[in-house]
Amino acid sequence: MPAPTTLADFRACLTALPQADSAAQGAARARDAVLTKPPGALGRLEDVAIWLAGWQGRAVPKLDRVQVAVFAGNHGIVARGVSAFPAEVTVQMVANFDRGGAAINQLSRAFGAEMAVHALALDRPTADFTTGPAMTEAELVEALAVGWNAVDAAADLFIAGEMGIGNTTTAAAMAAALFGGTGWAGRGTGVDDAGLARKEAAVAAGLAAHVGHLADPLDVLRRLGGREIAAMTGAYLAARMHRVPVVLDGFISGAAAAVLQRAAPGALDHCIAGHLSAEGAHGRLLAALDKAPLLSLGLRLGEGSGAALALGVIRGAVACHGGMATFAEAGVSDG
Amino acid sequence: MPAPTTLADFRACLTALPQADSAAQGAARARDAVLTKPPGALGRLEDVAIWLAGWQGRAVPKLDRVQVAVFAGNHGIVARGVSAFPAEVTVQMVANFDRGGAAINQLSRAFGAEMAVHALALDRPTADFTTGPAMTEAELVEALAVGWNAVDAAADLFIAGEMGIGNTTTAAAMAAALFGGTGWAGRGTGVDDAGLARKEAAVAAGLAAHVGHLADPLDVLRRLGGREIAAMTGAYLAARMHRVPVVLDGFISGAAAAVLQRAAPGALDHCIAGHLSAEGAHGRLLAALDKAPLLSLGLRLGEGSGAALALGVIRGAVACHGGMATFAEAGVSDG
Repeated sequence: MPAPTTLADFRACLTALPQADSAAQGAARARDAVLTKPPGALGRLEDVAIWLAGWQGRAVPKLDRVQVAVFAGNHGIVARGVSAFPAEVTVQMVANFDRGGAAINQLSRAFGAEMAVHALALDRPTADFTTGPAMTEAELVEALAVGWNAVDAAADLFIAGEMGIGNTTTAAAMAAALFGGTGWAGRGTGVDDAGLARKEAAVAAGLAAHVGHLADPLDVLRRLGGREIAAMTGAYLAARMHRVPVVLDGFISGAAAAVLQRAAPGALDHCIAGHLSAEGAHGRLLAALDKAPLLSLGLRLGEGSGAALALGVIRGAVACHGGMATFAEAGVSDG
Repeated sequence: MPAPTTLADFRACLTALPQADSAAQGAARARDAVLTKPPGALGRLEDVAIWLAGWQGRAVPKLDRVQVAVFAGNHGIVARGVSAFPAEVTVQMVANFDRGGAAINQLSRAFGAEMAVHALALDRPTADFTTGPAMTEAELVEALAVGWNAVDAAADLFIAGEMGIGNTTTAAAMAAALFGGTGWAGRGTGVDDAGLARKEAAVAAGLAAHVGHLADPLDVLRRLGGREIAAMTGAYLAARMHRVPVVLDGFISGAAAAVLQRAAPGALDHCIAGHLSAEGAHGRLLAALDKAPLLSLGLRLGEGSGAALALGVIRGAVACHGGMATFAEAGVSDG
């Protein structure tokens, strides 16, 4: 399935979302019930295996091909002093990804994922959203397509990560537009109180600048988002169309996913929350998405790091579901 | 260091506990501070790497040799109707471990641990602790030594698991004796309300039967414990003497460890809590031990399964700490 070439084509996908394979899910549930353990004793590992079975369309899910795609973009909003790091760190970190030196490289290797990096026009930051739309429609479609094309339809699991100095402010503005309320800005890479106040002011100014034009989630993404965030949105949508299960990462990943959920409730049924980030409003965002995180270890790095760490847990779930003996096979009394 | 041969020799260890290598810990902390991430952005992964460094005595910890030892024992208390499964399941599950069919086999394989099974006199259950001491002193010393000898002094990390129908009742009685209060019994493998009431009654009867003899934690272990639990206690003590870091598992593991903590505060500094079990009082037990769990996924299986799953997270921590580039190496601006 090639990437849509117009925004209308992307929108059309949202009206034709495939569902999980309920037969595979039922078969996985039946297998889980006869494995050598008390019913429910593996807790969420059991739910994870059954969820994967449904989206992979296999009674016994596998994780032979796991993708980690890291998207990078730059943000005009950094001119407002919203980050503890200078904007050139985005391109520097892309080089670090390419040389294998970042956290996501180590976690991808440790948990057997193939990692790819997609830098999106780093020399052309999005426009400052407090003064106008961050992207044109053409730029949005291009970014969505980069994400879409990053997903292999044959993957067993997909993880998106991001790098983009300034993008916790971008994501906070998107969350505020999509869900309402204030207080969505957080400390990001570690701003002080004055930096946090500048982030909150930038979000408020963004909402004010686009008031009356924020009802459509894809337009929220265009006006307040960023290229790497749009790529994540496009990737999550492609994964759904291919029925590839997804592990969400942190706050920025959640904002990218929220666009789909707000446009089409249920659009994230193929997604699981990998972790609860330490970024202040991530718990609130997960609650709005009705997702319970697998991990809560105080990570706030992005890059897909929390999702990649959760991949370890998911590998454990798949190993137990596929490898354990049944009561009958093992000759164990089942209570 | 061979296993002590008398209870007095085990007690003597508790007065000569080695400490972590503070130089290695300091070197690890210094390395963590210059890795290509905002300070603290890897959350608990950073703490885990530094903790491991201290106990391994290496600035860059490794996990080349990880041991999982599963101890099994039978319990006279099962005569009181405290389990949803019959006592013969203990020996059946040991056979399942030996054939590679249990959850702990899959998790050990998935996360690169060597697994060994130690069945302790399964044909001789401990005595019913409501009518007398569960073990003689000779039986206790023998079980402690099995655990002690299971630990390789050269291991990079050690995990103990257990199997023993009835042992959540045993562990509840121990916790009640060590920490006081009531309500330590839980659902175990899945007893109904009547079963839970029988467990609570058994715990109360055990405390009453040994009243006046529960001030010494090692005597609590002898009077109310079980062979597999004593083996875990012996293993955790041996690990400390060898400065091998430990991942604790669930409620039974916690009760075994609590014996050391009550006998010598600080005796569990080499231990981290792998997970919060769904067994009712595990959270209370971890709080009493002042341990924050890495995972909370509703597992309540024992076998070492929660600790083995946490090994995945710990591998992530070690991979990041050892593999990430520093700001200087990567040419990334450090804010």
